[in-house]
Amino acid sequence: MKPEDKPLLPEGREIQSAYMRIGSLINQTPVMTSATIDEQTGATVFFKCENFQKGGAFKYRGATNAILKLGKEELVRGVCTHSSGNHAQALALAAKKNGTKAYIVMPENAPLVKVNAVRDYGGQITFCEPTLQAREATLEKLRQETGATFIHPYNNLDVIEGQATCFYEILGQLSFFPDYVIAPVGGGGLLSGTLLTALEFSPSTKVIAAEPLNANDAWQSFKQKRFVPSVQPNTIADGLKTSLGSYTWPVIRDHLHDIFTVSEEKIVETMFFVWERMKIVIEPSAAVALAVVLENRKIFEDKKIAVIFSGGNTDLKNLPW
Amino acid sequence: MKPEDKPLLPEGREIQSAYMRIGSLINQTPVMTSATIDEQTGATVFFKCENFQKGGAFKYRGATNAILKLGKEELVRGVCTHSSGNHAQALALAAKKNGTKAYIVMPENAPLVKVNAVRDYGGQITFCEPTLQAREATLEKLRQETGATFIHPYNNLDVIEGQATCFYEILGQLSFFPDYVIAPVGGGGLLSGTLLTALEFSPSTKVIAAEPLNANDAWQSFKQKRFVPSVQPNTIADGLKTSLGSYTWPVIRDHLHDIFTVSEEKIVETMFFVWERMKIVIEPSAAVALAVVLENRKIFEDKKIAVIFSGGNTDLKNLPW
Repeated sequence: MKPEDKPLLPEGREIQSAYMRIGSLINQTPVMTSATIDEQTGATVFFKCENFQKGGAFKYRGATNAILKLGKEELVRGVCTHSSGNHAQALALAAKKNGTKAYIVMPENAPLVKVNAVRDYGGQITFCEPTLQAREATLEKLRQETGATFIHPYNNLDVIEGQATCFYEILGQLSFFPDYVIAPVGGGGLLSGTLLTALEFSPSTKVIAAEPLNANDAWQSFKQKRFVPSVQPNTIADGLKTSLGSYTWPVIRDHLHDIFTVSEEKIVETMFFVWERMKIVIEPSAAVALAVVLENRKIFEDKKIAVIFSGGNTDLKNLPW
Repeated sequence: MKPEDKPLLPEGREIQSAYMRIGSLINQTPVMTSATIDEQTGATVFFKCENFQKGGAFKYRGATNAILKLGKEELVRGVCTHSSGNHAQALALAAKKNGTKAYIVMPENAPLVKVNAVRDYGGQITFCEPTLQAREATLEKLRQETGATFIHPYNNLDVIEGQATCFYEILGQLSFFPDYVIAPVGGGGLLSGTLLTALEFSPSTKVIAAEPLNANDAWQSFKQKRFVPSVQPNTIADGLKTSLGSYTWPVIRDHLHDIFTVSEEKIVETMFFVWERMKIVIEPSAAVALAVVLENRKIFEDKKIAVIFSGGNTDLKNLPW
C-alpha cells in the first residue's frame, strides 16, 4: 500500500462545511457520563454515543457526507460498496434518505441479522463468495452495470471528512478541550477524522487509538512506523478487523499520540459492564475504547477524556456472555 | 384495603419542593426520541429514560425523597423495606449516598443478580421464606431490633411525592404540554405521582396507565371502580406484579384517563425492539408503556406522548428471547 499525498486531506474549514452539510440529516448524539465509571477510573469520562446515530453507528456521518457530495448524475446512478458491517447499513440508509440507491456486495456467509438490517434500510444486496477476490470482482461488475459510485468504507476522503464531524460535534457539546479523545481503530476512518479535527480545533487534546490485541495491525504499524496489514484477525470486535488505508495510515502515523490494545476477555467484560451499568447497547468495537481507559488507570487518572462509543449494532440473540 | 383520605396527598408546591430537595442528588434523565418509532406509531413519542436513573429505575426518586425527609434520629437508625426489586436497590443506594443504613428483607429465592445489586449498593440483606407472612414478620422483627424506618415501595406519601417529580421533570424538559403521558402500573407509586403532577402542572395531559394482561388488577380495579387485588400474577414484567395501595388506588380511581393491557408476547417483542433500534437497555416493565402505544395506533396517532421508561434492570445473562 502506498500512502497518499497529504495535501488532499480535509482541513478545518472542510470539516466545518461537512458538519453544516450533514448536520440536519444525522442525529446529534448525546454525550453521556457515568458516576460509576468515573469512580472506577479516577477520570472524568464523556461518552459520545454514536450507538444512537442513525443506522446504529458513526458510519452514517461519512456515508451521508459522501452521498451529499455526489453530482446530480451520480446521484441518479446510486452508490455501491462491499461491506458486511456498519458501513453497509449506513450507506443503504443514507442512500434511501437522500433519494438514491445503494448496491451492497455482501459475502454469502454474512450473518442474517446484518443482511436483514441492510435490506430493511432499502439496500440492494448482491451476494458473493466470502473471499476478497470475489468481493472485489463482484463489486467491479456491479459498478460497471449500474454506473454507481463506489464509496469505500474508510479510505475515501469524503468519508473521512464525515467521520471527522464526530469529534467536531463533541467539542461543541463539551465546554472545554478534553485532555484525551479515544477512538477505536479498524480501517482508520474515524481515527484519522478525529486526528484531523483535533489538529485544527483542539490541538491540546491527545488522540489515543484503541485496538483489539487480536487485530493489532494498527498498533504494529504505529509502533514500527511502517504499514503492517491486518492478517486473519480473530476478534469479537468485528468492526476493527480491517487494515488501515492509504489515506488513513499517514494521518495516524504522523499525528497519533499513542495506541493501546486490549484482550478479547476485557472487551466482552467492558461491553457487559456498559450494558449493565449505563443501560446502553454498545457493540464490542465500541467497548474497546473504554477498555483502554479501564486498563491504563495511571495514564488517565484525573484527566478529562472523550471516549467515542462508535456503534451499537450487535446480534441481541447471540451475545458473547 | 381501605382507601386513605385524599387531603394527605402531596400538592403542587410539595412536588416542587420535593424536586428541589432531590434534584441535585438524582440524575436528570434525558428525554429521547426515535424516528423509527414515530414512523411506526404515527405519533411523536418522548421517552423519559429512567433506566438511566441512579439505581437503574425511577424508584431512586422516591427512595431519596423519603430518606431526606427523615429526622436526625431516624437517619441514625436507618431505613428498612421488603422488596426483591428496584425499590430495594434504590433504597440501598439512596441510604448509602445520604449517610444512613438500609436493611432489606428479601425472599431466599430472589435472583442472585438482584441480591448482588442490593449488596453492591451497600444494603444489609436479611433473607426470609418466600411468603408474604414471612416477609412481613421478618421486616417487623428487623424494624424492632434496629429502630429503622420502614419505607414502603409505593404506599408511602414521601415515596409517591418523589415519583411525582418524574413527570414534573419531563414537563420542564419539553417545551409544551404533551397530549398523553403513559406510565406502567404495579403498586401505583409512579402512576399516582404522575397523576398528581398532571393535575397541578399539566391538566390538559391525559394520563394513561399500562399494565400486563397477566397482572391486570389495576385494569380490573379501574374498570370496575372498586379495588381488586393482584392474585398470583404471572408476568415477565416483575415490577408490575404488586397490588395497588391505599394511597395510590384512590388517586388512580379518581383521576386516571384510561388504562390498557398488553400480552406477554408483546412486552418481549417491544423490549427487543427498543434494545435493537434505540440501543438502550430497558426492563420488561418499561416496555409495557410503549407496547400500549404500538397496539393502539388510532388513539395515539398525531399526538404528542410522553412514555416513561421506568427502569433498565434486567438479568443480561438470562434474556427473554
